[in-house]
Amino acid sequence: MNKIFLEIQSITIIGKGNVAWLYNDIMTKNGFVVNCISSRKEIRNEYLEVDLIIIAVSDKAIEEVVSKFKLENTILVHTSGTMDMGILINNAKNYGVFYPLQTISKAIEVDFSNIPLCIEGNNEKTFSLLSNLANKLSKKVYKISSDQRKEIHIAAVFANNFTNHLFGIAKQELGKKDIPFEILFPLIDQTIAKIKTNNPFEVQTGPAKRNDIPVMEKHKLRLGEDEREIYKLLSEKIIKKNQEL
Amino acid sequence: MNKIFLEIQSITIIGKGNVAWLYNDIMTKNGFVVNCISSRKEIRNEYLEVDLIIIAVSDKAIEEVVSKFKLENTILVHTSGTMDMGILINNAKNYGVFYPLQTISKAIEVDFSNIPLCIEGNNEKTFSLLSNLANKLSKKVYKISSDQRKEIHIAAVFANNFTNHLFGIAKQELGKKDIPFEILFPLIDQTIAKIKTNNPFEVQTGPAKRNDIPVMEKHKLRLGEDEREIYKLLSEKIIKKNQEL
Repeated sequence: MNKIFLEIQSITIIGKGNVAWLYNDIMTKNGFVVNCISSRKEIRNEYLEVDLIIIAVSDKAIEEVVSKFKLENTILVHTSGTMDMGILINNAKNYGVFYPLQTISKAIEVDFSNIPLCIEGNNEKTFSLLSNLANKLSKKVYKISSDQRKEIHIAAVFANNFTNHLFGIAKQELGKKDIPFEILFPLIDQTIAKIKTNNPFEVQTGPAKRNDIPVMEKHKLRLGEDEREIYKLLSEKIIKKNQEL
Repeated sequence: MNKIFLEIQSITIIGKGNVAWLYNDIMTKNGFVVNCISSRKEIRNEYLEVDLIIIAVSDKAIEEVVSKFKLENTILVHTSGTMDMGILINNAKNYGVFYPLQTISKAIEVDFSNIPLCIEGNNEKTFSLLSNLANKLSKKVYKISSDQRKEIHIAAVFANNFTNHLFGIAKQELGKKDIPFEILFPLIDQTIAKIKTNNPFEVQTGPAKRNDIPVMEKHKLRLGEDEREIYKLLSEKIIKKNQEL
């Protein structure tokens, strides 16, 4: 690698979603020179003559966006949880991944210094430059391979996307009887405290854990069809897991 | 009701599970006179001559445990999330429910003052005595009908039991690639912060929310059969809910 720069200072971010917005926000706040480009049509040569280009577009658009790049010194990274680092091999000599492990909505503030950044680079120098940058932004920087990153993304779907839907159902069911969702907050907080210090499977509680069939049958009778299907499947899986332990 | 006492002072707890243990612990700490009886066989008359008897046994055992009771002045309560208050009607003049909305394991400390206590009484005086006692133990006392309590119990299954299982899967999947579960804690904390101030359905993120079929298909290929079934069903339900919003 040409040692043209010792640390990343100028950055171009391509994308208009939550990740592009988040990186632009935190990098600008930290004094980096950032160009944020919301569509490929806006790409001009000057935006490519930076130390780092961050591709923060949907998985399926990455290859098309980078298709015309032939970068010599500029590092090229994507921010996807699911795509191999290798998809950038034809577009830059130095490339990698800069994946933020967080659920990001523009409307909801996050403490960036607490977001785990999963970093990968195709060579030592690239990795080192990316991890130096990452360490300036977050206290939690991890060296994560493409294969590990895919596993993390799946785990994040279970720990965030799916649990979020279940919390939605809990709120919805309480609403039917005019009970405020707040009544569950101490339970939810305790659930989280428990899983942080224990194997969740080993501290499972509830009717499925006890295989308490009469209670589960009564619950199912009170649920709508979609919620009943979820209730049935998750109860079955808890019973099964409990037998395996 | 005979106004033999103005506040509850002496208490008998029948049961040997987590709830019996928890109530015995907190009430003893608060200076109440507590008899804790772990089986029906130990019940002697003196244990019944108290202000309050708390039945903290499994749902199916409640009616059998109280079957010989004919209480005149002593208040009789159960602690179940799913049983009607009315199941005690033949066993006491004054009866009710004292349901703690929390996931309780002897091994894991909880701040009792933060546990929501859901209280019901068959008459005003009984309710008032129970809620006075509850207010000495917890900052969060709710007047909750039997019908509302059942809905709360269902919501708690979704918000605690089912989410706990999903966190277990997340940890398990990470373990396959030697990734510490801790990497997900900021994500989990943010998930909880978000649902406390938003309708969870409205802040849903992830591949199912985006109906990102290629990502979901890749995820399913990497999962075992049980996890794949859960992935499939919850993704379908998120897609459906998103269309309804």
